[in-house]
Amino acid sequence: VNPDLANERQTASFSVEKLTALLDGGAEQTRLRRAVVEAIERDPVFSRENQYFQSQNERYEAAVRKAVHLQKKMHEMGWSQDGPESKYIYRAVAGDIAFLLHRIFMRSISVLGSDEQIAKWIPPASQYRLIGSYAQTELGHGTYLQGLETTAVFDVTTQEFILNTPKVSAMKWWPGDMGRSATHTVVFAQLYIHGKCYGIHPFIVQIRSLQDHSLCPGIIAGDIGPKMNFEHIDNGYLMLQNVRVPRENMLNKFCEVQPDGTYVRRGSQKINYFTMTSVRISLISGEAVTPLMKACTIAIRYSAVRRQSKLKPGEQEAKILDYQTQQEKLLPQLAAAYAFHFIDDYLQEVFDRGYGEIQRKNFDTLPELHALSSGFKATVTQYCTSGVEICLRACGGHGYSLLSGLPSLYTKIIASCIYEGENTILLLQTARFLVKSFMAASTGQSVPPSVTYLAAAKPRKCPAKNKLDFLSPDIYTEAYQHMAVRLISSTAAKLQDLIQSGVKKHDAWNRCTVQLAQAAKAHCHYITVKNFAETVEKLESKAGIQKIMKHLCDLFALHGIFSNAGVFLHDGYISGAQMDMVTASYLDLLAIVRKDAVPLVDAFDFTDKSLNSALGCYDGQVYQRLYEWARKSPTNKQISPAYEKYLKPLLHNTLSKL
Amino acid sequence: VNPDLANERQTASFSVEKLTALLDGGAEQTRLRRAVVEAIERDPVFSRENQYFQSQNERYEAAVRKAVHLQKKMHEMGWSQDGPESKYIYRAVAGDIAFLLHRIFMRSISVLGSDEQIAKWIPPASQYRLIGSYAQTELGHGTYLQGLETTAVFDVTTQEFILNTPKVSAMKWWPGDMGRSATHTVVFAQLYIHGKCYGIHPFIVQIRSLQDHSLCPGIIAGDIGPKMNFEHIDNGYLMLQNVRVPRENMLNKFCEVQPDGTYVRRGSQKINYFTMTSVRISLISGEAVTPLMKACTIAIRYSAVRRQSKLKPGEQEAKILDYQTQQEKLLPQLAAAYAFHFIDDYLQEVFDRGYGEIQRKNFDTLPELHALSSGFKATVTQYCTSGVEICLRACGGHGYSLLSGLPSLYTKIIASCIYEGENTILLLQTARFLVKSFMAASTGQSVPPSVTYLAAAKPRKCPAKNKLDFLSPDIYTEAYQHMAVRLISSTAAKLQDLIQSGVKKHDAWNRCTVQLAQAAKAHCHYITVKNFAETVEKLESKAGIQKIMKHLCDLFALHGIFSNAGVFLHDGYISGAQMDMVTASYLDLLAIVRKDAVPLVDAFDFTDKSLNSALGCYDGQVYQRLYEWARKSPTNKQISPAYEKYLKPLLHNTLSKL
Repeated sequence: VNPDLANERQTASFSVEKLTALLDGGAEQTRLRRAVVEAIERDPVFSRENQYFQSQNERYEAAVRKAVHLQKKMHEMGWSQDGPESKYIYRAVAGDIAFLLHRIFMRSISVLGSDEQIAKWIPPASQYRLIGSYAQTELGHGTYLQGLETTAVFDVTTQEFILNTPKVSAMKWWPGDMGRSATHTVVFAQLYIHGKCYGIHPFIVQIRSLQDHSLCPGIIAGDIGPKMNFEHIDNGYLMLQNVRVPRENMLNKFCEVQPDGTYVRRGSQKINYFTMTSVRISLISGEAVTPLMKACTIAIRYSAVRRQSKLKPGEQEAKILDYQTQQEKLLPQLAAAYAFHFIDDYLQEVFDRGYGEIQRKNFDTLPELHALSSGFKATVTQYCTSGVEICLRACGGHGYSLLSGLPSLYTKIIASCIYEGENTILLLQTARFLVKSFMAASTGQSVPPSVTYLAAAKPRKCPAKNKLDFLSPDIYTEAYQHMAVRLISSTAAKLQDLIQSGVKKHDAWNRCTVQLAQAAKAHCHYITVKNFAETVEKLESKAGIQKIMKHLCDLFALHGIFSNAGVFLHDGYISGAQMDMVTASYLDLLAIVRKDAVPLVDAFDFTDKSLNSALGCYDGQVYQRLYEWARKSPTNKQISPAYEKYLKPLLHNTLSKL
Repeated sequence: VNPDLANERQTASFSVEKLTALLDGGAEQTRLRRAVVEAIERDPVFSRENQYFQSQNERYEAAVRKAVHLQKKMHEMGWSQDGPESKYIYRAVAGDIAFLLHRIFMRSISVLGSDEQIAKWIPPASQYRLIGSYAQTELGHGTYLQGLETTAVFDVTTQEFILNTPKVSAMKWWPGDMGRSATHTVVFAQLYIHGKCYGIHPFIVQIRSLQDHSLCPGIIAGDIGPKMNFEHIDNGYLMLQNVRVPRENMLNKFCEVQPDGTYVRRGSQKINYFTMTSVRISLISGEAVTPLMKACTIAIRYSAVRRQSKLKPGEQEAKILDYQTQQEKLLPQLAAAYAFHFIDDYLQEVFDRGYGEIQRKNFDTLPELHALSSGFKATVTQYCTSGVEICLRACGGHGYSLLSGLPSLYTKIIASCIYEGENTILLLQTARFLVKSFMAASTGQSVPPSVTYLAAAKPRKCPAKNKLDFLSPDIYTEAYQHMAVRLISSTAAKLQDLIQSGVKKHDAWNRCTVQLAQAAKAHCHYITVKNFAETVEKLESKAGIQKIMKHLCDLFALHGIFSNAGVFLHDGYISGAQMDMVTASYLDLLAIVRKDAVPLVDAFDFTDKSLNSALGCYDGQVYQRLYEWARKSPTNKQISPAYEKYLKPLLHNTLSKL
């Protein structure tokens, strides 16, 4: 181990192993996770060693190979699909695997299909006698589902639906596993019966032969080409030309077309709505927080090894982690990674409780769950994406090399801001809930737990008298609360004013959306800070860990005030003089947290293989590894034809002319 | 043309052609630029049609081919290296060409070499009888040149320098054109004579045979592998093992080693210093502003064509450009592109004047030029990088496809934050100049023109009384000035306080760096706003253009206040009530500028080929083009071996088992 890294570890103020166990939810979980990761990483099929050198075609082939091999592996190891190991498998393969949409295909049938449909499709799907995909998004429509243009016309005479892509913009576009792998897909289309449109419905459609994988009649499908990342996934396009499927292929748990064309609705679709929101929550940990944790691990270890320029004249060059500006880039991201890990715990809890209610047919919690899932999906993916980018830039030129692992983390996490609901649209959904709750609260009606604070608001000033006061969670949590209430209430007031002055409702809404999105973010920021502070409080039995977590919580909170100073200063809740105290405490914290920075990323417990980074390895041998990895690049494996074709004639012709 | 785009153009409030001419610096320049672009784009060798599908090896080969072909082309067209066409050639090939470092190689010899050295090396280099590179950066050292570890020991007996790479971290790493192409390079190494170190000096070293391109004895070199972008460039590594070069190969305009080992300095190196700063200015336009202009063109045209969801119930789906949140993402970036185009004009002017002074041996302007070049390189590249990212995200899923052109713009521009001086370090250099100037100004000494405002500062309140007052350039320019002075003076005071309280100078400096960097940014932001306002004022003869430029200037200025509200509110210069006026005016401006958004990007005058974007083409046929381009992807050109190897056995084996 590089002595510069070894030193950082010797001075840890807490037990790294205990913090890892806390993050995992207990030492037993840590043991289980490590066993799964080890089993996967020991198997050469799952190696990501050459990932940065592979073409899109090679990545796809490797991902399919891994997906198929994983079935064998799970059987061998005795892991079941829903077993306790399953959540660690995805982490261990770093998402670099095919058939993720096959699982969505199965889930959509389970949720939207009748018992007969489940009995017919789930067994062959779980045995991979078919490979499914999920075809919702079209070239011309993403988040706005009602606008989808694919049609499914019911033909009473043959008892079939006839599916069509009426124009280019109606082509299905983006569905994973569909470009080259899937044999079946769930197609969302506008249902027409006797010329009347009944809106969007899901249909199971076979797109490729089970015998030779050729495209079925009327199907035009392929891969949508290169993307920023996800080269391993065959995101596809699909055009349907008079494709007929039997009446039984419309998923009909909630509505059915009877043989004579009568359309029947049944049951409540609310549970389906719940599924959508739970998907948003479920991606926070794996798709947003984990990549940020990895980026922090890479950037902080590298910053403790990289020496550049001198802090004091005459001394050795300084570790770049000792520069205040470098600390200010990286340590708030580290604090955020912890903050979001804990908010994910909180959201899981809220959702588990909500699920219990829903199973008792009580749907009252749905609006709150929807607002939470939308708001936190948007704020966490957005924050983590920025965080990964900051880590990348903080590593200078070497961060820009794919071998650092940072570019691929960034190009992948940025997609999380778009999929499962575009972030701005999600924030506005949360804002709609907040405005409604604020109105209710101000007229004395009861509101859901996460927004009761809207009623309790009292306009006053921040009581902090010196910089140490700002290390009190009460002080900063209240500042966040005050700020969130102010942004929500002032935007609600602007909305009301516009409407009362005669502006039409939808227009008034549009004219407030910039501020509404800001208010939604403020709400989520407040809950994150509050939850972090409460989490720290509960750690009283773990003194060493509680202390460093308190520092991180303070850092997260004060960084937020420092970098969004305007919203706190606006009404004078925090004064200019107090903002100077915030700044002073914030900068002090950087120097404190810096001391434990390396142990704090070690506690995330990523293996070298899972980081796949020449800069982030545990031993800190960054330069040696960059050199070794670079030599394996295909650019060094052949003499480029460019020499014989262009360079040699250039160099020689010119020589001969003189 | 898509009617949704055609409509946008019919309502332009100004003449697009006249604005283009203004941006080019006159109609004659526009004509010349178009002629160059057309000649290049008509030539199939320069086609970028398949760029998004190519591997690193293929990109490199194409770039070398283009570079070689360009020599022929220039000869054919009668274009000279320094002719008026030259600046348009780089724009036309979109930087996608090899041998860019060859030009740096030649420039370094011209600037650092003696007349004899210039006479010996420049002629063969300009005829490509050799290909040069520039080997400064090492694995372990970037911006801090004094830390470089490569050694050059003078051997009196043979009159040679012996060059060595003493350890892995001393390997040259990153130099362009060096991995596979260059035959020669300028190596920066620590000079040792009789055991004494004289610091960093430049040496011309041959690394590959001119006959067969094999590596020279003692040379280990290769390609550093995959990066986020620049796949077309063979960034290389270089290790030197007892490589001997004759005494004449040290570039010796400013210092020489005489035959007996006597080290002699001569002349002033200040002119060299000037070269460094001018490189930073020269990259602003091509590497930062142009990519932002392209990203705006793509995102704004797409947003006028993309329809999603409904603004008013019962109406057609709305153009996403009509949503306030979409306007708030894109239009400030558009305003910034114009602001930075004009600041580039300003900087060129200041530098031309400075160069005149320097030729008259007056070096007084150097510190200011250095501060300007450092500060603006950092702030403009940083701002434009964020801007391109915002444009990418604002295009949703399709922006994430490489075919949109946005990912490659982003992955390339982000490197500009790192090369030619890492941005944080550059900002701190500007800050050092600002603190010094502030101290001088406050003791009544004269200071350079760009910082005289530091002396004129008077603490008072913003006089604006309503939202329209904030459309007065005097009002907002003064607010920016006040804010810059406050940040510079308060940080200077903190620095002084720390030092007076006994903290060592270097430590005090480090503890102020977060705020110093902020102050440097504020200074550049102020100058940009002021310059934009002055530029608008001078447009009085062009009424239509002046009006829309005024709107953009207001938008740029108010967006900056809105999104950095804290620094304006901090001391009460702007009150909370006034900030509400800023917000109102800012949001109003979005709706105004939105009307001319498409004509404003049309005026940048990028051809479809230069945008290379399925979303950004002039005709707005985005869906048709995405589909056509995707079909050309290599992922659709072959049946993946994955089917026979993995999918078929999976699908069939399972079938047979049942």
